[in-house]
Amino acid sequence: MATLCRPAVSVPDHVITLDRTLELARSLHADHPALPLALRLIENTGVRTRHLLRPVEETLRHPGFEERNAVYEAEAKARVPAVVREALGHGGLRVTDIDLIVFVSCTGFTMPSLTAWLINTMGFRGDTRQVPIAQLGCAAGGAAINRAHDFCTAYPSANALVIACEFCSLCYQPTDLGVGNLLSNGLFGDGIAAAVVRGRGGTGVSLERNGSYLVPGTEDWIAYDVRATGFHFKLDKRVPGTMRPLAPALRALAGLHGWDASELDFYIVHAGGPRILADLGSYLGLPAEAFRFSRATLTEYGNIASAVVLDALRRLFDEGGAAESARGLIAGFGPGITAEMALGRWTSAGDRALVGEAA
Amino acid sequence: MATLCRPAVSVPDHVITLDRTLELARSLHADHPALPLALRLIENTGVRTRHLLRPVEETLRHPGFEERNAVYEAEAKARVPAVVREALGHGGLRVTDIDLIVFVSCTGFTMPSLTAWLINTMGFRGDTRQVPIAQLGCAAGGAAINRAHDFCTAYPSANALVIACEFCSLCYQPTDLGVGNLLSNGLFGDGIAAAVVRGRGGTGVSLERNGSYLVPGTEDWIAYDVRATGFHFKLDKRVPGTMRPLAPALRALAGLHGWDASELDFYIVHAGGPRILADLGSYLGLPAEAFRFSRATLTEYGNIASAVVLDALRRLFDEGGAAESARGLIAGFGPGITAEMALGRWTSAGDRALVGEAA
Repeated sequence: MATLCRPAVSVPDHVITLDRTLELARSLHADHPALPLALRLIENTGVRTRHLLRPVEETLRHPGFEERNAVYEAEAKARVPAVVREALGHGGLRVTDIDLIVFVSCTGFTMPSLTAWLINTMGFRGDTRQVPIAQLGCAAGGAAINRAHDFCTAYPSANALVIACEFCSLCYQPTDLGVGNLLSNGLFGDGIAAAVVRGRGGTGVSLERNGSYLVPGTEDWIAYDVRATGFHFKLDKRVPGTMRPLAPALRALAGLHGWDASELDFYIVHAGGPRILADLGSYLGLPAEAFRFSRATLTEYGNIASAVVLDALRRLFDEGGAAESARGLIAGFGPGITAEMALGRWTSAGDRALVGEAA
Repeated sequence: MATLCRPAVSVPDHVITLDRTLELARSLHADHPALPLALRLIENTGVRTRHLLRPVEETLRHPGFEERNAVYEAEAKARVPAVVREALGHGGLRVTDIDLIVFVSCTGFTMPSLTAWLINTMGFRGDTRQVPIAQLGCAAGGAAINRAHDFCTAYPSANALVIACEFCSLCYQPTDLGVGNLLSNGLFGDGIAAAVVRGRGGTGVSLERNGSYLVPGTEDWIAYDVRATGFHFKLDKRVPGTMRPLAPALRALAGLHGWDASELDFYIVHAGGPRILADLGSYLGLPAEAFRFSRATLTEYGNIASAVVLDALRRLFDEGGAAESARGLIAGFGPGITAEMALGRWTSAGDRALVGEAA
């Protein structure tokens, strides 16, 4: 049984507050006919602070796709190893214990994948499998957990490392002026998260089942336009309503497992925006605190794309975890529209093993 | 036991011959100091014809990254479904039998991945897992097979579909004038391949073990520079020598399985270039005909990146397959430098089942 262990999370130092975001929107888009709507949408996100790679003045400049992608690669190389080391430590593993690295990131592009550099630089084994995924956007955090789970199901003594590295600020496009863009400019933040999935042992979420669901006919609701200036984010105004089709998908997966999606002990879901959490809570009949981890991520970091679910899970650990065998749901949502969902139970087996060792 | 079934392959209609390639190199690079070397390298590839999406005159023009990527997406949507249908037919499966789609392609970028469009358009189930991989380059064909194998190992009654879609002609960069670029301009071709991996049943290669190997310190030997003009391919002159470290990796994987890599019955390896096949044959002590499938792909289609291994495998099927339980090796090589290797035995179980049904 694969166990998703305590994630490590890192956000960069430069902080932008909601007030500063609103002030910028007002000054940059003073003549925009939809400015009042955009300001209201940004206020409604509930995002209080976001962390950015660079000072906001620099973030607002577009130096070209090539330079941006070079920044992406340099910053990833500068920041990911420490997060990986912390995640390995949390999971009680060494680099050489890892059999699979799933690296998800949609805010920059390199070939080879950063996995090759990590293997060379951090001393992972040469036979470590690499699964780099760039095209699942915010759903990729859930996908990474699920593919790691599958791998450990295939090879029960294997260990996987999942890494989500998202520098959304490097996808800021000053010439994109749709309301969805203005909202996105106030919603997304930068962050890196990593966690190990242990085939045996470990404390955290013992993964029991996973599933994926694509909402029919919604491919263009969340998408990139790929241009000379890089990735241009498109966000359809129907996106906030996606919990209507996705809540039944979550219910169905739980049902397959003999669980009731409305009666689980913890929920770790992608905080794409406030309506997603509000609607999902409403459809599943859950109290607001069910999504306190996701909401805290959104409030403090903004939408950090594929890293949200790992950061929300980190907050569950920070709270002391859950009761032994407590049942929970993890779900990432992103372009497709795709949901990547997992069901698992809290296990403290790893902690007991440590106590056993100490005794 | 997962079985990799007969691949379907499609190449576009526009053909460029070796003579035309050489003529173009001579006229476009008449003053290039290394032209004689480049011509010699191109002649030595053994590539006689390649297939291109567009007429060569159009291929040589660079209309900008945005337009190129739009062509990539449009052509993929126009061409992939027929290949997928044929691959499903070969494997005796319907779209609704597929649980996982691994879509590999390094010559264009879309988000969402083409998997979302395929699921919507072709009627795959909404819960089909999507694994889009863009960053493993030519190794991705092997990686797709191996991740499909892992998935079927985790879920023994599951079926996976692997798709490799490579339009290398859309990465032609007229301003890149290194010898490696001039050679690449004469080496790469366009092609699409797909195959199903059946958890149960099926005729083809029954996958028994897979492995990955990253050659230390070679990350920058095969790489993309990501620029406003798109992906710029970098090919180090040391790449043709990579079989020196990779042959032992192949031997080691076979050894783990109790097999001798020099004594297998069939070999399906990435035909990156002629030296790769020559060196690997030499290191493993194999006769030239061991790589006849890979060499035929290289000769007729050029290096079609991640699609090579599937096309080479298709040629083994065209030859009538192998003897029951014949042992074989599949290996993709690409950036990292990464090898994705698989070991399996030929099985005609699916054919026998069909005969049984008919009787």
